[in-house]
Amino acid sequence: MEIAPTDRTTVHRLAHRATYDRGAINAILDEGLVAHLGLAPDGQPVVLPTLHARVGDEVFVHGSVANRMLRSLRNGAPACLTVSIVDGLVLARSWFHHSVNYRSVVIFGQARLVEDDDRKRAAMAALVEHVAPGRGGHSRPPTAKELAATLVLSLPIDEVSAKIRTGPPIDDEEDLTLDVWAGVLPLALVPGPAMADDASAARQVPEHVQEWSRPG
Amino acid sequence: MEIAPTDRTTVHRLAHRATYDRGAINAILDEGLVAHLGLAPDGQPVVLPTLHARVGDEVFVHGSVANRMLRSLRNGAPACLTVSIVDGLVLARSWFHHSVNYRSVVIFGQARLVEDDDRKRAAMAALVEHVAPGRGGHSRPPTAKELAATLVLSLPIDEVSAKIRTGPPIDDEEDLTLDVWAGVLPLALVPGPAMADDASAARQVPEHVQEWSRPG
Repeated sequence: MEIAPTDRTTVHRLAHRATYDRGAINAILDEGLVAHLGLAPDGQPVVLPTLHARVGDEVFVHGSVANRMLRSLRNGAPACLTVSIVDGLVLARSWFHHSVNYRSVVIFGQARLVEDDDRKRAAMAALVEHVAPGRGGHSRPPTAKELAATLVLSLPIDEVSAKIRTGPPIDDEEDLTLDVWAGVLPLALVPGPAMADDASAARQVPEHVQEWSRPG
Repeated sequence: MEIAPTDRTTVHRLAHRATYDRGAINAILDEGLVAHLGLAPDGQPVVLPTLHARVGDEVFVHGSVANRMLRSLRNGAPACLTVSIVDGLVLARSWFHHSVNYRSVVIFGQARLVEDDDRKRAAMAALVEHVAPGRGGHSRPPTAKELAATLVLSLPIDEVSAKIRTGPPIDDEEDLTLDVWAGVLPLALVPGPAMADDASAARQVPEHVQEWSRPG
């Protein structure tokens, strides 16, 4: 399914890398571990790294109810949420053609405060599951007090575009004979050995931690 | 050396995680592979993933001279550049105390267009070296035409703060007896085997690619 681009989501630079396909967009949102949330109170842009989680056609972000930045969004101020995944370094023969293989999604919109407790709890579950699939069932759900202390915002996946670069460097024809190695160095976010905390030291590392990986 | 925080860079949320130490800030800027650049033309925040490189007290970003977004910054529009590194997942006993170990830097400021060709070339060298240390000397520097086609912006590292979370989960006392494994799953951006392009297939992978790692 394609989402019709708007003036804001039409990709102008390197338009051949753009996609508006919902499946591709969802896959990037689900695989990307963190998002960068943009807001502009008083016209000054602010970019905050934050966890996100997609459920259907919306993306949730959360924070403390005391978080001034998130609070500034709850009354419909314009926001931008960007998720990017680096897949590799594109090492070309010229400095000029160096690049990065990446997948990114940019969502524009207005966030809505999630006030219903059931929806809030579902968003928090999605956030925990986004970080570590399976974790929701292996840790304690929020109490009423914790729920009340958490601010959850929903951003509709409506005005959105993705950009994807894959493949080898694209060098100028006349550079192909240069004495330079060129190609791609793939990169991935890889887990090291799980480190139990003091009270868990005697426990076996559970499967959902041992076999953690990003979806997709 | 500490940089005095301004109203905008004073960290309010979880202030114990904040640092204004220049060495810590530089280390995060140098290790983080990509930045997220925030701008707000017409009040609408836009967050773009982009390569960056620090040289001394400034950060360079670049793009095509046809890039409308970058062009919008060259006349002193307010910008925000954020670099974040995810170091691990903090898997707590409660959903509420789940977190991420991370290091991030947020710079506020106005970008300046780099017009001098020597400074532009130095910025491009720094960008290539930021991606892959050693690469600058193993690939072709820009021609005059390539230099002219590249827009380089400089953002002073002046109004800046860093935030760092490390260590195990901080669970509520009463949760420590729950039947839950808790701890940290370390994460790192790790290279896979280098993939030569067709014209490089017969070459040996050079040392700067084979031994690629982030500084720090």
